[in-house]
Order: sequence, then structure tokens, then C-alpha cells
Amino acid sequence: MEHKEISKAVLKRLPGYLAYLKNTQEGGSLYISATALANALGMGEVQVRKDLAMVSNGGRPKVGYLRQGLIDDIEQFLGYDNTTDAVLVGAGKLGQALCGYSGFEAYGLNILAAFDLMPAAETTVEGKPILPVSKMQSFCKSHKVLMGIITVPAGQAQRVCDQMIECGIKAIWNFAPTHLEVPEGILVQNENMATSLAVLSMHLQAQIKDKK
Amino acid sequence: MEHKEISKAVLKRLPGYLAYLKNTQEGGSLYISATALANALGMGEVQVRKDLAMVSNGGRPKVGYLRQGLIDDIEQFLGYDNTTDAVLVGAGKLGQALCGYSGFEAYGLNILAAFDLMPAAETTVEGKPILPVSKMQSFCKSHKVLMGIITVPAGQAQRVCDQMIECGIKAIWNFAPTHLEVPEGILVQNENMATSLAVLSMHLQAQIKDKK
Repeated sequence: MEHKEISKAVLKRLPGYLAYLKNTQEGGSLYISATALANALGMGEVQVRKDLAMVSNGGRPKVGYLRQGLIDDIEQFLGYDNTTDAVLVGAGKLGQALCGYSGFEAYGLNILAAFDLMPAAETTVEGKPILPVSKMQSFCKSHKVLMGIITVPAGQAQRVCDQMIECGIKAIWNFAPTHLEVPEGILVQNENMATSLAVLSMHLQAQIKDKK
Repeated sequence: MEHKEISKAVLKRLPGYLAYLKNTQEGGSLYISATALANALGMGEVQVRKDLAMVSNGGRPKVGYLRQGLIDDIEQFLGYDNTTDAVLVGAGKLGQALCGYSGFEAYGLNILAAFDLMPAAETTVEGKPILPVSKMQSFCKSHKVLMGIITVPAGQAQRVCDQMIECGIKAIWNFAPTHLEVPEGILVQNENMATSLAVLSMHLQAQIKDKK
């Protein structure tokens, strides 16, 4: 189906539907309704119905969606069937873990190489090249890389971000706990683990208070 | 100051303020106003003003907040000055990377040990113990652990989650790309990297379309 204009909020909910559909498949019915999905995920029925209608036209009244068809439609919509090449800067622990994380393949992400100011080795454990940052520009141009992943300490992140943009990168996945300034047309997605930790800590503090 | 009731939305914005305040400190003024912070982060002034008033009473008319005082207040509010002990289940690449990530200390998170169904080694590279899952219950009871981190594949995550709850864990940080069912009083915070990737991919698809 043709892609309609979709909001960031809808986009953020789609991977949740997909995870549920894929992980509850065994022994289930061939069909799933928006109502069933909404109940399982504790979400509003109207919202789920609207979201699914944005990405699939396979829903039938009283029956719902063919489960596998809906999975395919969401995956296609999210671009998981295309591969996006990316480079990563900051070949420390987190950077190397991301380079070696096989789970990204399922989402169509392919990290071609890691870069570092001072590479401590020539390749990662999995054999991906670790190159000096000075080679990033030529590498990105020749491989037409549009996505960059930042895993350097906060103090270096803005400089790396600026370099990526000079290399022609349009979308940046930022794991450094800092705010990045970018020109229009460049998207920064912050993976802010501190945010998750804050929510968890606050829950535990409330639990401990309740006990007292 | 006494903590007021705070919404999850506010809680999620606080680490962003903190990151900005901590990373732009050099050469700046001793004071920062809510207006300046709002402008720098591209947020609404009223929202920033309200958020800051929830966690600090150090703001003065026309002057703003003493920068370091505001940092201290936010950190104290988020519990970064207390240490939360956690266990992690799934000592694969991602799990070991999280165990070795020194950045968590700044947020008051201390991963005591990793557990695995079949530990491939006795310790992580950094020397943290990797224990069989069968020992998790006694470990959690004796160390009074309330937070658990799940880094197993999606298919095993619900079982691990159930085991953690039996061990007395109240807050779960879930890196497995799947939905977890939990009883009331248990908080699950999903670190859904797929969501971030979806947002980035969609941006790139739109960029490529624009060029055509």
C-alpha cells in the first residue's frame, strides 16, 4: 500500500506491535484483531485501530488482520526489508558491543565500520574494521553512508557529530549523554539510557517509601 | 526540598536538562535561566520553568538558577547520589557491555553480577561474577537487590522476568525486544532500540525520496 504521512508518535508505537506479534505467534490464531492487540498491550483500542490502518489495509471487519500479513506490512513500512549502512564513531566497550550485536540485522541496520581517534586494534572481535577518524570522510563518500552512530564520551560528541555531517550523514543515533546541535534536515535520535534509569530509580524510591 | 508528586513525562525530561547543564559548563556564566535553557534545547519556556520548579527552589527572578546548584538538585532528585544495586541476566555481548560500562556509576547504578543459563566464563572482562541463573534467588535475597536488567533473546525474556519477580525484584530494565507481562507494582522500562531505529530509517527514507 502507499505510505501515508505518519507521525513520530505512531512510528514509535509500531515496533511494539511488531514485537508482540512476533513473540506470541506459537499456538495462536492465524488472525488478530486490533481489539485483541490493544487489550494485550494495555493500550486504547481506537489508537491501535488507527495506527494499524496507517500501515496495512489487510484488516477485515469481525476477523481482524492475518497475523503474518500484518507483521509483513509493519516490517515493510519500517524499512526492515531494506538495509541501511551505518558507521560508528567511538570503538570503546559500548561501540564494540553495538558493532557485534547481531540483533540489528533484523531491523535492516548494517554497521560497516567503527572509527576511533586512536584505534586500539585493527578490527573488532567480530572482524569489523576499526579505522582512524581521519579516514571517515572518504569511507562515507565511497560507501554512500547516511547513518552515523555516536558512542564517544559526552565531551567529544559534538565534534564527532559535526564531522559526520561533513561526511554527508543525515541521521545520527546518539548514545553520548549530551545534547547535540545540528542544522536543519539532520535527525538526531538520542538513546538516553539515563532517562530509563531515572524512571526505574524513581519507581524504586516510591516502593521503598511505601514500605516504611 | 521536599519532593512533590512528579509525572513520568517530567522525569523523562530531567536527564536532558542535566546533560546540557553539565556539558556546557566551561566558560559559561555561573547562572542559567529557564529561558536560556529552553532556547538552547528548543523547548517551551513555560514547560522548562515548571519542570525546574518541581525539583529545585533555587530559582531567582531575573537571575535564574545557580548552575551548580541546579545540577545538584536535579541529581539529588533523580537519586544519582544513592546507589542502586542491580543484577543482569543474559551475559552475552550486550549484557557484558552493560556490565563493563563505567558511565552507569554517574547515575548511581551498580551492577553486582551477571547471570546466565550457561555461563561461558566465571567473570566478565572487568571481573564481575557471571553466575548460573539457579543462584539468582539466594544472591538477590542476600544482597537485597530490587533492580534487574534483561539482556536475553526475546524468546527467553518472559521466563527471566518471572524469575526476577520471584527473587523480589521490583523494577526491570528490559533490553529484549519483546513485551513483558508483569503483576501490579512491578515497573518495566523497555529500552527499545528498534523504536529509535524506526525513527532514523523513516527520516532517511524521506530524505532519499526528496532527492528523487
